[in-house]
Amino acid sequence: MDPQQIGVGMLGYAFMGKAHSNAYRTIEYMTWPPPLRPALVAIAGRNQDAVAEAARRYGFAEPISDWRALVTDDRIGLLDNTGPNNLHAEPTIAAAEAGKHVLCEKPLGRTADEAFEIWRRTAAAEVKHMCAFNYRFVPAVRLAREMIEAGEIGEIYHFRARYLQEWIIDPKFEMVWRLNKDEAGSGALGDLGAHVVDLARFLVGEISDVSGLTRTFISDRPGGHVDVDDAFESVVSFENGAAGTIEASRLCHGRRNAMTFEINGSKGSVVFELERLNELQVYLAGSRPGDRAQGFRQVLVSEADHPFWEWWWPQGHILGWEHTFVHEIHHLLRVIADDGDVRPYGADFEDGYRAAEVCDAIVRSSETGRREEISYRSL
Amino acid sequence: MDPQQIGVGMLGYAFMGKAHSNAYRTIEYMTWPPPLRPALVAIAGRNQDAVAEAARRYGFAEPISDWRALVTDDRIGLLDNTGPNNLHAEPTIAAAEAGKHVLCEKPLGRTADEAFEIWRRTAAAEVKHMCAFNYRFVPAVRLAREMIEAGEIGEIYHFRARYLQEWIIDPKFEMVWRLNKDEAGSGALGDLGAHVVDLARFLVGEISDVSGLTRTFISDRPGGHVDVDDAFESVVSFENGAAGTIEASRLCHGRRNAMTFEINGSKGSVVFELERLNELQVYLAGSRPGDRAQGFRQVLVSEADHPFWEWWWPQGHILGWEHTFVHEIHHLLRVIADDGDVRPYGADFEDGYRAAEVCDAIVRSSETGRREEISYRSL
Amino acid sequence: MDPQQIGVGMLGYAFMGKAHSNAYRTIEYMTWPPPLRPALVAIAGRNQDAVAEAARRYGFAEPISDWRALVTDDRIGLLDNTGPNNLHAEPTIAAAEAGKHVLCEKPLGRTADEAFEIWRRTAAAEVKHMCAFNYRFVPAVRLAREMIEAGEIGEIYHFRARYLQEWIIDPKFEMVWRLNKDEAGSGALGDLGAHVVDLARFLVGEISDVSGLTRTFISDRPGGHVDVDDAFESVVSFENGAAGTIEASRLCHGRRNAMTFEINGSKGSVVFELERLNELQVYLAGSRPGDRAQGFRQVLVSEADHPFWEWWWPQGHILGWEHTFVHEIHHLLRVIADDGDVRPYGADFEDGYRAAEVCDAIVRSSETGRREEISYRSL
Amino acid sequence: MDPQQIGVGMLGYAFMGKAHSNAYRTIEYMTWPPPLRPALVAIAGRNQDAVAEAARRYGFAEPISDWRALVTDDRIGLLDNTGPNNLHAEPTIAAAEAGKHVLCEKPLGRTADEAFEIWRRTAAAEVKHMCAFNYRFVPAVRLAREMIEAGEIGEIYHFRARYLQEWIIDPKFEMVWRLNKDEAGSGALGDLGAHVVDLARFLVGEISDVSGLTRTFISDRPGGHVDVDDAFESVVSFENGAAGTIEASRLCHGRRNAMTFEINGSKGSVVFELERLNELQVYLAGSRPGDRAQGFRQVLVSEADHPFWEWWWPQGHILGWEHTFVHEIHHLLRVIADDGDVRPYGADFEDGYRAAEVCDAIVRSSETGRREEISYRSL
Repeated sequence: MDPQQIGVGMLGYAFMGKAHSNAYRTIEYMTWPPPLRPALVAIAGRNQDAVAEAARRYGFAEPISDWRALVTDDRIGLLDNTGPNNLHAEPTIAAAEAGKHVLCEKPLGRTADEAFEIWRRTAAAEVKHMCAFNYRFVPAVRLAREMIEAGEIGEIYHFRARYLQEWIIDPKFEMVWRLNKDEAGSGALGDLGAHVVDLARFLVGEISDVSGLTRTFISDRPGGHVDVDDAFESVVSFENGAAGTIEASRLCHGRRNAMTFEINGSKGSVVFELERLNELQVYLAGSRPGDRAQGFRQVLVSEADHPFWEWWWPQGHILGWEHTFVHEIHHLLRVIADDGDVRPYGADFEDGYRAAEVCDAIVRSSETGRREEISYRSL
Repeated sequence: MDPQQIGVGMLGYAFMGKAHSNAYRTIEYMTWPPPLRPALVAIAGRNQDAVAEAARRYGFAEPISDWRALVTDDRIGLLDNTGPNNLHAEPTIAAAEAGKHVLCEKPLGRTADEAFEIWRRTAAAEVKHMCAFNYRFVPAVRLAREMIEAGEIGEIYHFRARYLQEWIIDPKFEMVWRLNKDEAGSGALGDLGAHVVDLARFLVGEISDVSGLTRTFISDRPGGHVDVDDAFESVVSFENGAAGTIEASRLCHGRRNAMTFEINGSKGSVVFELERLNELQVYLAGSRPGDRAQGFRQVLVSEADHPFWEWWWPQGHILGWEHTFVHEIHHLLRVIADDGDVRPYGADFEDGYRAAEVCDAIVRSSETGRREEISYRSL
Repeated sequence: MDPQQIGVGMLGYAFMGKAHSNAYRTIEYMTWPPPLRPALVAIAGRNQDAVAEAARRYGFAEPISDWRALVTDDRIGLLDNTGPNNLHAEPTIAAAEAGKHVLCEKPLGRTADEAFEIWRRTAAAEVKHMCAFNYRFVPAVRLAREMIEAGEIGEIYHFRARYLQEWIIDPKFEMVWRLNKDEAGSGALGDLGAHVVDLARFLVGEISDVSGLTRTFISDRPGGHVDVDDAFESVVSFENGAAGTIEASRLCHGRRNAMTFEINGSKGSVVFELERLNELQVYLAGSRPGDRAQGFRQVLVSEADHPFWEWWWPQGHILGWEHTFVHEIHHLLRVIADDGDVRPYGADFEDGYRAAEVCDAIVRSSETGRREEISYRSL
Repeated sequence: MDPQQIGVGMLGYAFMGKAHSNAYRTIEYMTWPPPLRPALVAIAGRNQDAVAEAARRYGFAEPISDWRALVTDDRIGLLDNTGPNNLHAEPTIAAAEAGKHVLCEKPLGRTADEAFEIWRRTAAAEVKHMCAFNYRFVPAVRLAREMIEAGEIGEIYHFRARYLQEWIIDPKFEMVWRLNKDEAGSGALGDLGAHVVDLARFLVGEISDVSGLTRTFISDRPGGHVDVDDAFESVVSFENGAAGTIEASRLCHGRRNAMTFEINGSKGSVVFELERLNELQVYLAGSRPGDRAQGFRQVLVSEADHPFWEWWWPQGHILGWEHTFVHEIHHLLRVIADDGDVRPYGADFEDGYRAAEVCDAIVRSSETGRREEISYRSL
């Protein structure tokens, strides 16, 4: 018997809209049988021609120009919000309150307050909610999490992560919405830092305090004034005693999409690099008495017993960046189908909110010059 | 206006059938607009339940159990043969002679004679024919080819390549068709070696002679006797004077899917590793007078001006192994739509045949102990 | 004509004493002709048998048990202090005030105050003084410095460095002087952090403020209580506007001696790893118009025109860690012979003092929770 | 008590003379206590000024211009022949027949015949003889040997090695003795290939047959005609059934001194790269049931229990290329002191001869086009 359908309405058709659309289409046959078969009902966007083209390209039945139509469409069971950051709150809340499950791109809100509000009202609506921290769904990252969970790395001492890109290093690069505070909320912090903060929480635990600073190296660009950060640096402490650093920058020559982290524990270490996302470096202490061949293992995460690999290829036939979305959205569809939990392997809106609290604390610390303790609100 | 359709009939639904099916489905929206929109008409295979499941999974309208029905189906414009090696010749020729374009997995034939026959009769039918050497369609490999073509590497002195896997290293691994000469033709030679021979020709030029040997380390396995090679080693000479080695083995612990090559020329060198297929290492001599920072460049092949990247993501968001098929089949559809040429960037059946001549010569050399010159037949 | 001699008196014969002794013996014939020929006059240490053995082994004419005898020995022109941190101040100052040139291991003092006092009194004595920050003398590090100085990396945005070791990760590892505050001053901070702080200053410029924290994960060890840091984390700002992080830890499994740094500027980036000290990764933007082979270059720093390589081997025949001391001490002998300047390529005692100010500020920030501005004292 | 002395006479003061001289001087205090203390009696060379300078630089008591004086010098117990290849036979034999122990650079002879003659007459003289295959004394290579010996890699299936350099890639590079057959015997083959052949024998076992070819890409150079090979390629079979390839070239852009090998066995694999000589990559199958973190281990060979490390530094403080000679000559001095065996860890003249047989067979195969079986002569 073929799987049941779920109607999907999407807001946004740009970078993330393309990535999510690809995931819906791929899930249908790759994660076979899919928990639910996505029916691409409608896609919304401001530019009428572009959204019509996107609908035709990705196979949405209907292009629309006002996202409100998605919320009132009874065929839609899942609202996927890939719009810019200033369009996260209102459509997501409206869809949730209309009884639709919601998937929202990160950062959940432009501030912790906004993120909290999205979480609060969505949770009250009792729908499934997921914040699209897709790097939790890299097989190597999930393997790291499972190894840590199983105690193989021991007590965690350190977490160090940096997310480096270079796309705005040219001072002549023109203004885009991502460089405007009203629309984006923040710069490298919310865009790149939020990912790393989420991974810190996913892999190590809750962050208790931060010291940091933000920098805008190039404030004036063709087309406008940049009022978000180009980069930030921070020291973080975790509730479990671990300590480390989190950094991000968009001005690092040669770094295309270079998110890396290293975790050191009392029994081993793991290292990950996003540009080689099929690999995990693992050091395990004392795996064999008298072992003279100890060293970081270059694990090509592509075996049948590795996370998510039951759907794919024989070992060594590597996956790409886009597959993280296939895994992520498959996870959400499974949760919806089974009335299960997004957590702990998926990030829900509370996770989106908590990441925002850490990002806000880095901004505060940059301004006050003080180590900022973080208190998380509950519902 | 939406692109025109082409009806696709597929033979085989296993590893390669899955990879090709994924490509047809992805082309439709990723290589937008596609040159032709693939309509998945029918899929053929011996196991009725499995082929029915495959049809449902990948979206073929009809599962059939006799490939002959594909050949007579008027809705089908392209026969895609992903069956085992002993099913390459007959269906491919029949489809071509029925006026269908044909795509056939490698190795084209189990021997050079068989491959020649497939080429001869297909060419006579005046349809488009393509041998599925998908590694030509790795962006990094194509970039290497374009750099060599543009003279950036200079006169080529060396080509060294090895394709190492480990999947049959356990002596208890059971017999499969790939270990049986009747079905597979050869072992590592036709399966892995053919890929490397094709890349040698694609990147450097025609091979003029070879010295080599083959080895079967584990002859008796549960379920039968292995009569193909586990590994081969060879020295190759090229018509243009370059010299090098080509090797493959399926008994290399730790090597999941490790095809690597290195090319050295009078102006530079390039190095490629399939397990990190998004990267190309490039050495360019004398790029700057007085340059004290000369070294191999780790090029992450993911820029807007890199081959095939106009369809994908922002830089650094890497592709997977499966995307080689998307590029490959897109190329074929473009050729069909435009009545263009599969060559030089795609491999046609002559390329499939020529690779087979080299593989056969390695077998001969292994037996005779002599350097074997290769003479290629023409039509 | 053979070079003139300089009498060397050494304090300490352990790890650093061995490394320095090796350098004196090697300089004599490798950095040929040496600026001065070191005559190993006497070596001082507390354990009489051990110091006698060390003298015999390394070729010092005389073993002595009281360092004061070094200071009054007229044959000695250079006092080399490789003793533990609590023996840096008194012997170094005494030697300087006796008119001897002085080389002192890092950290110069256990605190900024102590380091300042050593600097002040030594400078007043008008002898040459050098603080043994040997990593300035890695060829790859020096190349990085020269490229930055020449403007090839542009305006610097970021400096990120970490120095990770693992040697005390076993809780059963016993107390040693390096874990005792009275003797060592601090833990990872003064031992590892001082190196990185010095490189930050050497490569990027003066540090203006820091936020940080220190951690002692394992306080009780066989043989005593640890009262120094196992690790520290910090965010640093530079006077020129650059921002980054500096970290060190002795509890990182798999990290033998892993000092790494990355510098990003407006024109390029450089990356260095101490465990591969013969290599420098360099990214240079826009080296060629239309260049599709941009990437980090793996520069094997071993060419004739690379720093220090005029003394060594043909390209690719790599150097070891110990050679940094050969280069360092050669530099000092050249400075003494020519009455030249230790700076800018060598670190003098002001550099030793300034590193100590930064380390102290990290401790203060850890305690106060505030970003600490650093004010450097002058003479 | 201090170790006994042994008088050393050296022939040659160029690249290898410098490397060996450094070793003698270093052994004295680093491999403490040395088995014998080298006394540098005399150094011989044709250029009187240069040899005088070399004597002064390296500390030889006496420079001489005729090597025959070394042979008759009673103070000399060890003749170290670092001269050009055409000066290997006569002085080495003369010294041995005068009762001196002999160390001779590789290749032992310019042909197998010459090498055999050196071995035969030296062995008859009943002195210790060693052929300077220094790469046996890289700690990582020795570790590989010990692991293979202990069965940790299992039955060996493959050995693949290449030794790539680039120093003569410029056609304007002028003639030197290494490009002249009379003086050098062969080109890349004897210079680079001999090293790799020796490692093949050291690590895997005796080579039984080869197929190969040699190439001279640039025959005419300023100052003369090149009559040796620029490069060679070969397929090798081992007596134990293993198969592989051995290659070398001096025309590989970007390859400074790139000797690499890979060995695959039934239980694991090892990989080595000379430009990162402190590292060994090791894959061990099935080290832990259910292990999901299998991969090549990047072993930094610098632990206290690693070969040769008892003499050096704390872990992670890497060695350089030159240290291979320290280990090698220390081994020889130990053998002389103890009247022990150069084998199996050192290479004696039989090893030098056997490597020459393989090199000769590659030349023969290149000429005949046939796989050449190798028969080794015995005494």
